[in-house]
Amino acid sequence: MVESASPSPRIFTAALVVIGDEILSGRTQDKNIAQIASWLGVQGIRLREVRVVADDTDAIVEAVNTLRLRNDYLFTTGGIGPTHDDITVDAIAQALGVPVVVHPEARQILSDYYASRGSELTEMRLRMARVPEGAGLIPNRYSGAPGIHWGNIYIMAGVPMITAGMLDALTGSLEGGLPVLAETVGCWVGESEVAQLLAQTEKDHEGVSIGSYPFFREGRTGSNFVIRSTDAEQLAACVTALSAALEAMGRDPVLGGI
Amino acid sequence: MVESASPSPRIFTAALVVIGDEILSGRTQDKNIAQIASWLGVQGIRLREVRVVADDTDAIVEAVNTLRLRNDYLFTTGGIGPTHDDITVDAIAQALGVPVVVHPEARQILSDYYASRGSELTEMRLRMARVPEGAGLIPNRYSGAPGIHWGNIYIMAGVPMITAGMLDALTGSLEGGLPVLAETVGCWVGESEVAQLLAQTEKDHEGVSIGSYPFFREGRTGSNFVIRSTDAEQLAACVTALSAALEAMGRDPVLGGI
Repeated sequence: MVESASPSPRIFTAALVVIGDEILSGRTQDKNIAQIASWLGVQGIRLREVRVVADDTDAIVEAVNTLRLRNDYLFTTGGIGPTHDDITVDAIAQALGVPVVVHPEARQILSDYYASRGSELTEMRLRMARVPEGAGLIPNRYSGAPGIHWGNIYIMAGVPMITAGMLDALTGSLEGGLPVLAETVGCWVGESEVAQLLAQTEKDHEGVSIGSYPFFREGRTGSNFVIRSTDAEQLAACVTALSAALEAMGRDPVLGGI
Repeated sequence: MVESASPSPRIFTAALVVIGDEILSGRTQDKNIAQIASWLGVQGIRLREVRVVADDTDAIVEAVNTLRLRNDYLFTTGGIGPTHDDITVDAIAQALGVPVVVHPEARQILSDYYASRGSELTEMRLRMARVPEGAGLIPNRYSGAPGIHWGNIYIMAGVPMITAGMLDALTGSLEGGLPVLAETVGCWVGESEVAQLLAQTEKDHEGVSIGSYPFFREGRTGSNFVIRSTDAEQLAACVTALSAALEAMGRDPVLGGI
């Protein structure tokens, strides 16, 4: 409690809308939530909420307009390709109340990309140069078609490798706060045996949260306790206190987790 | 269009709320969205929307109350263990406006489970017998603590193996509609080359949707086209038409996908 005299650092939040029937049908295992969450953490931005919606204009509009207003940043993945089921740009433009226009630089990028492959920028491929009016571009080092940046909204590809390239291009360009630091203490103990200890230890350390993640391996019960804080000293004190308490119970805590 | 004289079959929808800081921090790759989506498909129920929320009462209440009212079913995963960060039951009871009570059968299950392991039902473990008043239980064949069923809400574990066991216990007990049938046609073609063909083929087949999923492998561009319908005849006709059109372009369609 002594440290709480200093002002709380500002927290930056982001939301993510994953757009795609293929996730909701179970055909495709989403990989973008975890990779965007991890990337945001490094930027000092917390992913606060995610929605997965169908390739459906109303669903996209509702999610985008709710989440962009209550978070510092909104990311979307999916639905920016050249086919009829790629409706993300139109839906977001509708959500924002702006027209869809062809972005001259995006058109040039696509034209160069297809020319370098001995092919042409057809009408359907030109769809990938369409953006909500007023947008900037996010470079795509893999497949030409750029991502789109409009206000606090970042419109990204659905294919995880392409998304990763776009995140890489954005690294360092978004304002964030203090990154959340995390340490894991693993232990061969059922979480229910130490539930009260965890609650008390969290209470004793200002600004620290402890998550408990049980597992079953080779017939044994164990748990990983993930301790998170933006304050390195409080984090270290909490790790020390929890480890000492587990040792006092005759359990071997494993720093870094099991 | 000839077939449309028959009445449209009723569509059953579900939503899913994934509860857990560990998903939003990127620490844990979610596996429950895909497995619940696939399971629902077999029951004739469509997963229409998913939200991932933090271990935060307000976030859970908002998601649960929005989604339970506009879908036939609502599933949740995560936050039903014995520790301080397991707040799902309390949050959902708050959303429903009912008190939390200890379910006698759940207490017995847990008591027997721990007795069989030479241990006891402590106060913290008893937390796992707490349910929103009026709830039924979902059997958990792996770790004792049951899932919870209240109205159209199904409250499940977060650990994917335990979730899978709970889904298995529910198999066949939820009313669904016609299952969505799907066929995949793969082709070594960039989706932008066939975008117009896809749009036209979808338009030509009532009640059929075509999703286009491009990929890059071994330096080559290909796409899988996933054709979905509840009507087996329309589905087959669409697969045949698309395959014939790809062949006419000199491309080899691969039934089942690449």
